[in-house]
Amino acid sequence: GNAILSSYGTTIFEVMSRLSDEHKAINLGQGFPDERGPADVLDVAAKAILEGWNQYPPMMGTPELRQAVAAHGKRFYGLDIDWKTEVMVTSGATEALTASLLGLINPGDEVVLFQPMYDSYLPIVRLAGGVPRFVSLKAPDWSFTRADLEAVFSPKTKLVLINDPLNPAAKVFTRAELELLAEFVQRFDAFAVCDEVYEHIIFDGLAHIPLMTLPGMRDRCLKIGSAGKTFSLTGWKVGYVTGAPHLLQPVVKAHQYITFTTPPNLQAAVAYGLGKDDAYFTGLATGLQAKRDRLADGLRAVGFEVLPSAGTYFVVADVSPFGFDGNDEDFCRRLTAEAGVTAIPVGAFFVEDAPRSFIRFCFSKKDEILDGAVERLSAYF
Amino acid sequence: GNAILSSYGTTIFEVMSRLSDEHKAINLGQGFPDERGPADVLDVAAKAILEGWNQYPPMMGTPELRQAVAAHGKRFYGLDIDWKTEVMVTSGATEALTASLLGLINPGDEVVLFQPMYDSYLPIVRLAGGVPRFVSLKAPDWSFTRADLEAVFSPKTKLVLINDPLNPAAKVFTRAELELLAEFVQRFDAFAVCDEVYEHIIFDGLAHIPLMTLPGMRDRCLKIGSAGKTFSLTGWKVGYVTGAPHLLQPVVKAHQYITFTTPPNLQAAVAYGLGKDDAYFTGLATGLQAKRDRLADGLRAVGFEVLPSAGTYFVVADVSPFGFDGNDEDFCRRLTAEAGVTAIPVGAFFVEDAPRSFIRFCFSKKDEILDGAVERLSAYF
Ligand SMILES: CSCCC(=O)C(=O)O
Ligand SMILES: CSCCC(=O)C(=O)O
Repeated sequence: GNAILSSYGTTIFEVMSRLSDEHKAINLGQGFPDERGPADVLDVAAKAILEGWNQYPPMMGTPELRQAVAAHGKRFYGLDIDWKTEVMVTSGATEALTASLLGLINPGDEVVLFQPMYDSYLPIVRLAGGVPRFVSLKAPDWSFTRADLEAVFSPKTKLVLINDPLNPAAKVFTRAELELLAEFVQRFDAFAVCDEVYEHIIFDGLAHIPLMTLPGMRDRCLKIGSAGKTFSLTGWKVGYVTGAPHLLQPVVKAHQYITFTTPPNLQAAVAYGLGKDDAYFTGLATGLQAKRDRLADGLRAVGFEVLPSAGTYFVVADVSPFGFDGNDEDFCRRLTAEAGVTAIPVGAFFVEDAPRSFIRFCFSKKDEILDGAVERLSAYF
Repeated sequence: GNAILSSYGTTIFEVMSRLSDEHKAINLGQGFPDERGPADVLDVAAKAILEGWNQYPPMMGTPELRQAVAAHGKRFYGLDIDWKTEVMVTSGATEALTASLLGLINPGDEVVLFQPMYDSYLPIVRLAGGVPRFVSLKAPDWSFTRADLEAVFSPKTKLVLINDPLNPAAKVFTRAELELLAEFVQRFDAFAVCDEVYEHIIFDGLAHIPLMTLPGMRDRCLKIGSAGKTFSLTGWKVGYVTGAPHLLQPVVKAHQYITFTTPPNLQAAVAYGLGKDDAYFTGLATGLQAKRDRLADGLRAVGFEVLPSAGTYFVVADVSPFGFDGNDEDFCRRLTAEAGVTAIPVGAFFVEDAPRSFIRFCFSKKDEILDGAVERLSAYF
């Protein structure tokens, strides 16, 4: 097999989900909600399957979904987006990321990545021949400095890949941090691939700031969104990427050979969903915020040191209080097997300088599931 | 953008479909059926959306679909397939192909390709760093000889990519041809990626012979199938790849970063569909065979020289009788604009040695559409 891809193991999410199933553990590992998603969105999809178009849609996505993505950008961020040339639909945000990286990187290009990072980033950067340059963010604030960026940006920098809100750190970047990043992107004539799949899952009244909205950044950013996250339908695999035509066109080229198109029936339902009223979007966030508090409080009561969570489905806990032996993955395996609760080791999101005492819990679950997990943990410890 | 991908234009299918729409032409270009697909399969999908699982399915696909793909291999080809380790579901056959090529090829590996070939093959082979070696098949029999294979196989050959039945040539490879190919694959210790998406769309009582079923080939082949083609639901983008674990594992690695998963609701419906009775599968072929005959007869009456079509959605016509000026793509553009009928230039499936007087018509359309196209053509010529 390909030497680069073969050097990476099975994704930690799949590994821990399988282990969780084996042990009939409560799975707070892989990030997905356990609810049904909005009934009206499901209805539109079912109707589209029974009465709508089930053949190839246009390669860029259905006009209605591309229009809805553009309108969403206007409504939430004041962005003026030309749906015909600046929006493409993909088979999930994972494909959007892979198409962006394969479409944009030439061998030898440098790519700035922030650790912790989602585990598909690095293999694809390397497969594309990109040279990764890492900025390591440190708990509890997961911030970066001017010196951090000076150390990794260079005239060879092609792009920076940023995830905001940041999985697994549950961090939302501040305007000051984004401005600093934007300054470097512009100074080095680079651009940014912005994985913003958790854009609507953000708490405590914080606002998501797309990097694209910063001065000088409109035409230097590709913004990636996900219907899976925004409508609690992670299995649907409908993503979208928005950006200036000169950035998007090379990504279209990659998409054309990767999946070519995405099911039109699901696209129809997502187009409908993006038009839902504000109450839907704020309800998504407030509902998850309550779950965050429920789980965080429970974990604290058990004795975990719980880090702040400003967004995403996740909360990170420091396990040092438990006389921790230094391997977060082993800890998660034991927690699954012995306590019957599955979490994800945060170290799996690092290539170097990995912290080893953090584990990530997913709280996008029914209250009784969260309570059950806390009960099991408190029985175990 | 990436220099390799940027060097390729927009796929000819998309280009001609857009042109066709502009001119309100009858689109016999891009290959897709215009019917609704089997109602019972649609019902299962709609029900799965309303009542089933809409979150991430397992990365390899749902157990039920993987079992159904294995059972399908047994039922139609006598293959014994272990669904747990030898079947993976992908977001369409396009993703299956791309994951196979990116997962298996290392830079410098040679890849044998048969021209005419589907237009996603070469860009991805090159993106993976593979070195293409072409066998050019020639009309009307589109066959190859021992000397053709001697000329391209070498100790550096990593794999051969074959599409059987072959789009756009509408050829079904004979057992003798497949045996010759199998001999070379084994002699050079290579393997084969077999794009068999049209396995059930084969005419005149011919039988599809998966290369995998030939002696010595069971563990040297990856067999790619497509629900889009088998259930006339090309928009669903559900594909599957079957093969020995040592071949499949590297492909899983690529899939994990390309799309990761495929909608579970559509997987449920395809699993159901693969279990349909023999009448469904033979009906698919006989229905399309009648359409082939309808269109071919009509084209002949208009004055085209029509080549045999043994499988696929397509029939190739020689346009030489029309005082043809040597550019098949221009011819197709003019046919769209002036006659109001869209076909695909067969030259677009070649990198070198392209024939220039062949165009491809898709006949997987309602009878009245086919008749309308023939009427327009006969009015035009
Ligand atoms: C693609 S599976 C992983 C889901 C996810 O985003 C996560 O758990 O971090
Ligand atoms: C993926 S669009 C092209 C459909 C097709 O297989 C063809 O027309 O050849």
